[in-house]
Amino acid sequence: MILGKVKGTIVSTEKNIDIDGARFLLVDKCNSKGETKSDFVVALDLVGAGNDELVMISQSTSARETPITKNKPIDAVIVGIIDLIDEYDEVVYRK
Amino acid sequence: MILGKVKGTIVSTEKNIDIDGARFLLVDKCNSKGETKSDFVVALDLVGAGNDELVMISQSTSARETPITKNKPIDAVIVGIIDLIDEYDEVVYRK
Amino acid sequence: MILGKVKGTIVSTEKNIDIDGARFLLVDKCNSKGETKSDFVVALDLVGAGNDELVMISQSTSARETPITKNKPIDAVIVGIIDLIDEYDEVVYRK
Amino acid sequence: MILGKVKGTIVSTEKNIDIDGARFLLVDKCNSKGETKSDFVVALDLVGAGNDELVMISQSTSARETPITKNKPIDAVIVGIIDLIDEYDEVVYRK
Amino acid sequence: MILGKVKGTIVSTEKNIDIDGARFLLVDKCNSKGETKSDFVVALDLVGAGNDELVMISQSTSARETPITKNKPIDAVIVGIIDLIDEYDEVVYRK
Repeated sequence: MILGKVKGTIVSTEKNIDIDGARFLLVDKCNSKGETKSDFVVALDLVGAGNDELVMISQSTSARETPITKNKPIDAVIVGIIDLIDEYDEVVYRK
Repeated sequence: MILGKVKGTIVSTEKNIDIDGARFLLVDKCNSKGETKSDFVVALDLVGAGNDELVMISQSTSARETPITKNKPIDAVIVGIIDLIDEYDEVVYRK
Repeated sequence: MILGKVKGTIVSTEKNIDIDGARFLLVDKCNSKGETKSDFVVALDLVGAGNDELVMISQSTSARETPITKNKPIDAVIVGIIDLIDEYDEVVYRK
Repeated sequence: MILGKVKGTIVSTEKNIDIDGARFLLVDKCNSKGETKSDFVVALDLVGAGNDELVMISQSTSARETPITKNKPIDAVIVGIIDLIDEYDEVVYRK
Repeated sequence: MILGKVKGTIVSTEKNIDIDGARFLLVDKCNSKGETKSDFVVALDLVGAGNDELVMISQSTSARETPITKNKPIDAVIVGIIDLIDEYDEVVYRK
């Protein structure tokens, strides 16, 4: 999975994905300290993530291994909100 | 999914993809403000996107999870036209 | 799919892919004007592409969605020879 | 597979992955000498890897080809702890 | 497939891949002249490749389309040893 920081939301009315209440978030890839890279992914939110939260994103076919995304043309889902990251037993990020 | 801006169309007569009326668009990857990267993808259009519109592209196997692309050698489809992107509750792109 | 320009051929006798008459081409990724990036892919040719032609390459699992590549360890196939690319209704590449 | 060095752990309570005792490690991609790239992956640990160890990470669908990750939205797993790397018959890394 | 040059071997005793006699090679991605990029992949060897040989690597799910790698968490296999590469009908690499 990759690390990303939620930056905002995407609104799309003409789309080919019929998931009720699908919420697409704008996520910027980041390092372990939450520093972003201006490298954006649009990910389906499955966990109720909010702006500025660090999340884990699962990509490609793995993104479809959930009851909601099964057989849908979705290639990126937020699978977890990150509470804490430690590097060498030192906390480098805390929600 | 990735963000891209539609730049034009691709015409290919000798091809190994038999999808009636398949329309391949030239899409340039972009950031959340629509600024392009000169990093091009050829994507099948499923939503009737036009030049200069921002779109969401689903890639790899996820691109085949539609009735039209099922079992076809297609690895990138436009799954949505973007109407609006907000970052930290401020609109950064509007169609 | 990605854009690439055919540069040459690859000969491999000791290989683990048994496709009769398989022809592996050396393809350099390029932009919409055909300018190459020195970023090479070895792709199976399904359409009879020749040197200097621009082609569409389908990658990953999508590369196996053809009768010839089904169940083969192939992750890149040339699925179309490009005749014309237009950007904003202006022709930027013509075969 | 890619090479990475284990840097720490990720704690996520609100997540959409139900694997008992799943342990997500923060891994920094590295070269054959163990020099890191500040390019992080969050990988499920299947082998009991610890900080500073070099590991092999399998990605994408291949990450689900284990009894634990089958049908889970996991796209990166640590499949081996590396004991030794040699380049041209000279040891460049030893655990 | 991508081009790579074999640089050495990887030894891993604690691993989650049970393939008898599996031999993991350290491969550095390269261009059509065999010039390497210091961008390493660990690939399962299926063809008996040796140091300094140029090889074709198949990645992702395609890497599992062989009797040996089927249902294994392997995402990169060496599928061919390259004998010759020509660019515009001129030989740029010969084994």
